[in-house]
Amino acid sequence: MPHYTAPLRDMRFVLHELHNSADLAQLPGFEDMTADLIDPVLEEAGKFASEVLQPLNQRGDEEGCRYEDGQVYTPQGFKQAYDQFAEGGWTGISCDPAHGGQGMPVSVHMMIEEMISSANLAFGLYPGLSHGAYKAINAHATPALRDTFLPRMADGSWGGTMCLTEPHCGTDLGLIRSKAVAQPDGSYRVTGTKIFISSGEHDLTENNIHLVLARIEGAPKGIKGISLFVVPKFLVNEDGSLGERNTVTCGSIEHKMGIKASATCVMNFDDAKGWLIGVENKGMRAMFTMMNAARQGVAIQGLGVAEAAYQGAVSYARERLQGRALSGPRHPDKPADPLMVHPDVRRLLLTMRANIEGARALGAWVSKALDIADKSPDPAVRQDADDLVALMTPVLKSCFTDMGLACANMGMQVFGGHGYIREHGMEQLVRDARITLIYEGTNGVQALDLVGRKLPAHGGRLLRQFFHPVSRFIEDHAEDPQLGVFAKQLGKAFGHLQQATIHIMKLGMARPEEGGAASTDYLRLFSLVALGYMWARMAQVSIPCVGTEQDAGGFYRAKVGTARFYFERLLPETGARRSAILAGGSSILSFDDNWF
Amino acid sequence: MPHYTAPLRDMRFVLHELHNSADLAQLPGFEDMTADLIDPVLEEAGKFASEVLQPLNQRGDEEGCRYEDGQVYTPQGFKQAYDQFAEGGWTGISCDPAHGGQGMPVSVHMMIEEMISSANLAFGLYPGLSHGAYKAINAHATPALRDTFLPRMADGSWGGTMCLTEPHCGTDLGLIRSKAVAQPDGSYRVTGTKIFISSGEHDLTENNIHLVLARIEGAPKGIKGISLFVVPKFLVNEDGSLGERNTVTCGSIEHKMGIKASATCVMNFDDAKGWLIGVENKGMRAMFTMMNAARQGVAIQGLGVAEAAYQGAVSYARERLQGRALSGPRHPDKPADPLMVHPDVRRLLLTMRANIEGARALGAWVSKALDIADKSPDPAVRQDADDLVALMTPVLKSCFTDMGLACANMGMQVFGGHGYIREHGMEQLVRDARITLIYEGTNGVQALDLVGRKLPAHGGRLLRQFFHPVSRFIEDHAEDPQLGVFAKQLGKAFGHLQQATIHIMKLGMARPEEGGAASTDYLRLFSLVALGYMWARMAQVSIPCVGTEQDAGGFYRAKVGTARFYFERLLPETGARRSAILAGGSSILSFDDNWF
Repeated sequence: MPHYTAPLRDMRFVLHELHNSADLAQLPGFEDMTADLIDPVLEEAGKFASEVLQPLNQRGDEEGCRYEDGQVYTPQGFKQAYDQFAEGGWTGISCDPAHGGQGMPVSVHMMIEEMISSANLAFGLYPGLSHGAYKAINAHATPALRDTFLPRMADGSWGGTMCLTEPHCGTDLGLIRSKAVAQPDGSYRVTGTKIFISSGEHDLTENNIHLVLARIEGAPKGIKGISLFVVPKFLVNEDGSLGERNTVTCGSIEHKMGIKASATCVMNFDDAKGWLIGVENKGMRAMFTMMNAARQGVAIQGLGVAEAAYQGAVSYARERLQGRALSGPRHPDKPADPLMVHPDVRRLLLTMRANIEGARALGAWVSKALDIADKSPDPAVRQDADDLVALMTPVLKSCFTDMGLACANMGMQVFGGHGYIREHGMEQLVRDARITLIYEGTNGVQALDLVGRKLPAHGGRLLRQFFHPVSRFIEDHAEDPQLGVFAKQLGKAFGHLQQATIHIMKLGMARPEEGGAASTDYLRLFSLVALGYMWARMAQVSIPCVGTEQDAGGFYRAKVGTARFYFERLLPETGARRSAILAGGSSILSFDDNWF
Repeated sequence: MPHYTAPLRDMRFVLHELHNSADLAQLPGFEDMTADLIDPVLEEAGKFASEVLQPLNQRGDEEGCRYEDGQVYTPQGFKQAYDQFAEGGWTGISCDPAHGGQGMPVSVHMMIEEMISSANLAFGLYPGLSHGAYKAINAHATPALRDTFLPRMADGSWGGTMCLTEPHCGTDLGLIRSKAVAQPDGSYRVTGTKIFISSGEHDLTENNIHLVLARIEGAPKGIKGISLFVVPKFLVNEDGSLGERNTVTCGSIEHKMGIKASATCVMNFDDAKGWLIGVENKGMRAMFTMMNAARQGVAIQGLGVAEAAYQGAVSYARERLQGRALSGPRHPDKPADPLMVHPDVRRLLLTMRANIEGARALGAWVSKALDIADKSPDPAVRQDADDLVALMTPVLKSCFTDMGLACANMGMQVFGGHGYIREHGMEQLVRDARITLIYEGTNGVQALDLVGRKLPAHGGRLLRQFFHPVSRFIEDHAEDPQLGVFAKQLGKAFGHLQQATIHIMKLGMARPEEGGAASTDYLRLFSLVALGYMWARMAQVSIPCVGTEQDAGGFYRAKVGTARFYFERLLPETGARRSAILAGGSSILSFDDNWF
């Protein structure tokens, strides 16, 4: 049975030491959000994840969800865990206090999301989707609708979903066929079939609030004729109590590779009563405002699974005795040495570690920008933060989820044959992680978003929020006796990124396909530099603490050691990505369709 | 439902055009093995794979094997398919005609293995393991034991297994505890528990012939005290009929991530009657002679799954309409363009294709060397061929299986959310492929074998069989107007490999851990150059055919186009691997165990 312990020490390092959480407490509404308040919250969340959610993870996978006559039953124990989760206030952790939420920063919420994802990814999707729906309603619905739905969503007694995909359209939402007909009372009747709806139907909450993309009769074709509606499972009476059952039903659930405890539903809307959210035909825009947070949430899922895989692999590498150290037995008294002595096992563990800690730091940087974009009184500061978030969101989503799958596979590999059987839970991590590369926009779509939308936006303005601090760091520290070596290596990698950026900007203008052909390599190159920047920053913070009292357990020495591993062994990939990009797209674009 | 069509055209290209199959027919015993004979055999095998094996693949996964009171039942349809397989002579395809086999070259057998692996990996393990046992018995057992077992194994009426792993030892077989006690009649009584035994028990054959590693009482400790035994499920009477049930039983089967239709058994030997194979205490050596072929077999499994994923992805990319080409609609009459128009989808498909066709060519090169090593009358030629096989086996095993998993994931990614649900069969490919990175020695163990055993063997002699033809090719074609560009790029990559080789040879001598820390990067670098060499060779063969009548379907243009993609977009990774290796292992080796 796998175990999980929240990486609280590293989370505190990232929040407070690396990203200076004191800045958060300067933002209006976050005055109380100091380490004194944040740390115990993280500690409690870690306990909940380890003690309640993680023990349900394997059982949830084995049992899966069950569909019977339109009802969906979650695995044994999920309902109790969910009730406990809601009672603990975790469903409303970053919801508005006006709706009964805890009002905590996204920076803190994301760390809790990481813990939930490490412990039980499938469970996390229920409150995760609800929170997405909460935010969409909060941002775009009328006050009346907000009052009706949000307090019950914040306290977790009602859930929420996002109903976008239809059988013939996933990425290409312009093809949506679901339709909405206006009623004299101002409501709409919504009809259509939606697929792949996470939490579409389940037994965890009293009501389920669906956000649905559909076309109002007579709307323009394509993406510009799509509106967003709220369609509750049960209609709500004036007094807030549950009324009539709405005509939205679950037709079936999918049999999936993983996240089996998460109900993935086919939802049939049959003249279901709903209300418009935001402006007619501007449904996509309403969805898009949610998308950065949702995609970052998926990124954090990748990080969470990676951390779980790392913990499993480290503990197995300590316990399992197999083979001898190459230079002679390390433990001659035992029948064999632990796996940990083998350099290639250590390489796997360090690769996981360098990616995970780098990602945690990078994710927290962008989460902090989300908080600033949301709360800062200064519009210029808000704009800058928003630019960083917009730029980095596709990078985080792809990089962290690719990394989550890769780390799950590495963790499994450390277990050898024992990783392939269900018992140790390692293969479940691989199956669960796999969906994160697909949902909320496949990783290829993220790359296209980066290259096709984010790079050219406002004449390249978004890039500044990343390029400026990186080049400043390189300049400031190139001659530093300790940081210099990192700054120089980062400088080389950053040079690759700059060359690739110029190449894409130039070529892509003339021929957008060229940008598409470079997009995944470019996103990967961007990710490597972004993680490199984080590792250089972490080294900067850690070096002065090496050998001090605080470093008794080796926390800071490990940081510097992992930074060195990252720069020496992983960052050189940037050169390969640059070469692939600079070669241009013609080998991809000129290959005849019939030859495949 | 997925479909599969054997890539016969490419197989013929590789066998006849690229590797000149006429050479095979020069070898004693292979006089008939011309294209006239080989091609119809491949065609029949392809039919069998498509029509019989592939349609059982999903059902096999859904149903899995069933264990009941020591019996194991394979999924519905497997027994009939196996009988048909045996009747068709496929179980004995490369067995000795003296035992009723077809006596075909390994070169042909491996192509058939690829087809079986594409169509139904789990099914293929039953005859695959039997064939491994056949070869071990054939190479090391007494004539009497050979006569008893081999004809029935060749005709498929009896199966075979390899019983190595025990609960506490996988890679480290020196820890084996199973023991064997000599009996006055020359037989032994074998006792012990073996785990992860593929095909350990099933309902496909009348008898099951287990090869078991165990220690004879009083044998030296560790790897030097292990002997190999043959232990049949049913003892065999003098007249060849089945006798008494032996005391070897299946205790349970494993619940695994994939290959669910393959029975992975816990086998209990309880004073089971067996006979020594080969020399006392030299069991590992007897196993090792089989290992090259077995590891190449696993490599081919990776290739087979990759091909299946590619075919699925291409067909979905043609059919699925989603989004528009970046430069404007390609099919304005349709609601959307097919996925195929998107550059990043094409990049995925080409990455799969370049790896698959490169691997097929490389695998066939090494298979041909296996045939030569086995049959050539010239000892020097045999030695050279054997050197190439020994050197390339760990490269193939790791490279092809890593690639198999990567391609399965890429194929699944092309399907988006539809890839994550069971229906399309894409996620099964990922789960099935995953084991190939683990069994027959994890890929990390392969890398260590390459760096720790194969590089230093005989003062680096093995390397010559690969380095010489590559450097000759580069020299010969650097100035060629068409091939020159490929030769130069190959030359650069080969330079990286040479630098890394020198670095490892030097450092690794002084400190073996340094070789271990470099091993996986080195194997990857080696693989990239090996695939590059094959692509350069394929371009060499194809360029003269471009635009000729034979090229009507674009076969040769596609080859040259894929070669270009490989050189421009994938081969540059060699630089990153070289940098990682040259940085040395100290960031890995000096990281304190307690910091993990």
